[in-house]
Amino acid sequence: MTRPNRPDLPDVPWIVDADVRAGYGVDASFGAQAPTDFEVVRARDEADVVEVLRYAAATGTPIVPQGGRTGLVGGATATPGAIVLSTLGLNDIVDVDPVQGLAVAGPGVIVEEFKKACAAEELFYPPDPASAASCTLGGNVATNAGGLCCVKYGVTADYIAGLRVVLPGGAVMTTGRRTAKNSVGPDLTGLLVGSEGTIGVIMQVVTKVIPAPDPALTALGTFPTLTAAAEAIVALRRDPHPPCLLEFLDEASIAAIQSLADYGFPQGCAAALLVQADRPGHVTQDLARYAAMLTQAGADEVAVADDAQEADALLAGRRALHVALEAQGPQLIEDMCVPIRALPQLVTRGREITAAHGIEVTMSGHGGDGNLHPSLGVDPRDPDQVERGWRAFGEMVDLALELGGTLSGEHGVGRLKAPFLRRQFDNAQLQRLRAIKAVFDPAGLMNPGASYSAP
Amino acid sequence: MTRPNRPDLPDVPWIVDADVRAGYGVDASFGAQAPTDFEVVRARDEADVVEVLRYAAATGTPIVPQGGRTGLVGGATATPGAIVLSTLGLNDIVDVDPVQGLAVAGPGVIVEEFKKACAAEELFYPPDPASAASCTLGGNVATNAGGLCCVKYGVTADYIAGLRVVLPGGAVMTTGRRTAKNSVGPDLTGLLVGSEGTIGVIMQVVTKVIPAPDPALTALGTFPTLTAAAEAIVALRRDPHPPCLLEFLDEASIAAIQSLADYGFPQGCAAALLVQADRPGHVTQDLARYAAMLTQAGADEVAVADDAQEADALLAGRRALHVALEAQGPQLIEDMCVPIRALPQLVTRGREITAAHGIEVTMSGHGGDGNLHPSLGVDPRDPDQVERGWRAFGEMVDLALELGGTLSGEHGVGRLKAPFLRRQFDNAQLQRLRAIKAVFDPAGLMNPGASYSAP
Repeated sequence: MTRPNRPDLPDVPWIVDADVRAGYGVDASFGAQAPTDFEVVRARDEADVVEVLRYAAATGTPIVPQGGRTGLVGGATATPGAIVLSTLGLNDIVDVDPVQGLAVAGPGVIVEEFKKACAAEELFYPPDPASAASCTLGGNVATNAGGLCCVKYGVTADYIAGLRVVLPGGAVMTTGRRTAKNSVGPDLTGLLVGSEGTIGVIMQVVTKVIPAPDPALTALGTFPTLTAAAEAIVALRRDPHPPCLLEFLDEASIAAIQSLADYGFPQGCAAALLVQADRPGHVTQDLARYAAMLTQAGADEVAVADDAQEADALLAGRRALHVALEAQGPQLIEDMCVPIRALPQLVTRGREITAAHGIEVTMSGHGGDGNLHPSLGVDPRDPDQVERGWRAFGEMVDLALELGGTLSGEHGVGRLKAPFLRRQFDNAQLQRLRAIKAVFDPAGLMNPGASYSAP
Repeated sequence: MTRPNRPDLPDVPWIVDADVRAGYGVDASFGAQAPTDFEVVRARDEADVVEVLRYAAATGTPIVPQGGRTGLVGGATATPGAIVLSTLGLNDIVDVDPVQGLAVAGPGVIVEEFKKACAAEELFYPPDPASAASCTLGGNVATNAGGLCCVKYGVTADYIAGLRVVLPGGAVMTTGRRTAKNSVGPDLTGLLVGSEGTIGVIMQVVTKVIPAPDPALTALGTFPTLTAAAEAIVALRRDPHPPCLLEFLDEASIAAIQSLADYGFPQGCAAALLVQADRPGHVTQDLARYAAMLTQAGADEVAVADDAQEADALLAGRRALHVALEAQGPQLIEDMCVPIRALPQLVTRGREITAAHGIEVTMSGHGGDGNLHPSLGVDPRDPDQVERGWRAFGEMVDLALELGGTLSGEHGVGRLKAPFLRRQFDNAQLQRLRAIKAVFDPAGLMNPGASYSAP
């Protein structure tokens, strides 16, 4: 079945095939369901985006900007009556400049492709969310995405030097810098990073790029107690040359990974840490020091991957965690970040919370950042489970906040976490954020209901 | 002579001594003059700041937030009828946490003191403006200050993780993160960085801190042509382990420095580059490579400082540049940043512009960033010189913009550069910035006339 173009906006590329269109209705979030009444434009260029935003302003049509649809919080699901504006086609890599240390690309560029283009110039664009093979640069900016690299290299926000944005009504705004430094006025770039489509449509991204590190090598430590694993994390964070990856896996996560395939993880420990070193010229030396620190902190067993193949297997296992958990049943995935020393409390008390609601949970993630992704086994088709799942979820948000943390380390807020945002933001901040959105989007058409903009 | 406290706001610490008060009327900018009718409060704590901002809102009194008064663009000079709100007394270093990689301090902490407190924990807070011994952390945030470190480490914006801010009317807002990551909503931190007191008063600064590098060693290269020096900069920027300092000095700057004292610079070359390496375990090796690159690019002479003393002398000479120029007469100091490859054009055409207006100029600064500080010999007491000086200044702003640059790399805009800001910002950005300011400061009381807020 095909649908006609909107007669009052004929010259933009509507997706007219109903099945294809339906695919654009949801992202990768828990229980995502598209409404029946939405349409999709897949922009070819800036002119298309300007046209659509002009049309939206004139007709009061909501707009849902969309990248690779890999988001886990419902930030890119279609809303009733909306035009989903896909930026997937805006995928030019314009420039990678080793002298300026900047690269310029369209919002639809796949993050892995962008990283490869940088690597071809011996440069490194660090952000590496698990979905790097299918998520987009624009989506990463919109959610301030992270990944495994953050413990050493930081998050997407740390790499965005400037943006070009189409605003509601069709005005085009540039922010940030194209030079090594700029100190002219407040920089509106940071307002767009993490804005989840609520302010404008990102048209071009200027990123910082840094010299490439050495290929990383990996060590694995298994621990008899959570506390010992947490002590190892604290020690590694204090090292003068800290690791470029420091992942935490609990027992249930390891079991799930190993039941998918043998990735080389030993089972039966309370927790495991994956650690990587990539410092040019010092990889082996740093890794040996990390291994000693794991032992010192009380690891039962420490294995240093002798070659890249073995290291890749361990990393592949870590990257397969989400798939491994989904293989056991549908998952409601949390993303909380707490002060590093509070990790054991987050894990222990998080388990108590989920147990009290009769929900299975695994507690793994970016331990070196204090950023875990508790994964709750909840079937979206079972209303009772869903209700208990969300209650546990909310209590875990409260726990993270009580520990001095945040309700999202890297996934964003979207529509799923919007109800909890008020627990974290002070009124002064929330009111100003909404008023600032109104400066750009007085009619409230941009990604309605997402993040701080939800009522 | 003393002045009474304001009877309607008796409980905050007004500066009552007229001479002391007068000192708070100006910053370090060209031709700065205080108005007669301003008052000064030196806040002791957040409660004082809240009181003053409540009072200002109730009475329509302008507020000029102020740090160390080292600014060069008139961003902290008193305006008629204003209360200057000095944050110099808010100088607690609250926390330096090597595990989180974060430090927390008051806005009045002197940058050098803050750097020392970090160094005591073997941590490094990189920003190092020339005024580090007297400028404040809050002022550095307000202007997005830079320094000699930026070529490797970036600017203040790159190190601000979160803020606590008192807003007009007295509301308190927290922004950013206290954890390793946070992806909840747009981060308003970036809106305050570079805002030059136009939005609120910074009460607390959360900075990133990184592992300390090795003590730096220094090399000096002298060049027969500008082009050769620029080629060396381009080559060094491409190095996989680029320098932590890369300063450019022109012939006239070197002459001025050497006439102040013998800092060890040879005279008669077209340009000199100072280069430093600080990579842990590789300082000597990196510096030798940089030295070879200087020679390769066409340096007449390359001297590697054999010891820290010799290196310190060269650096002290560079740091004395501003004083050395002032010793020859008053200076109107520019601060423009261009794409690195455009440096020779900036220098050559900048000299043509100043010559056409009969103004002496030196062109030196942070060459590795493309960020120079052309210094125009202009006597503020000579109206004709001042007029020609500002005309040359404006043409140099146009030149920087034409070359793809910005009118400030690190000094900010303040009141002196506000007339030029419109040449750089697109309308979409300027209008939104002003509307965002109005969200926080509807009466326009915060630092009136500074930066983008100037009419």
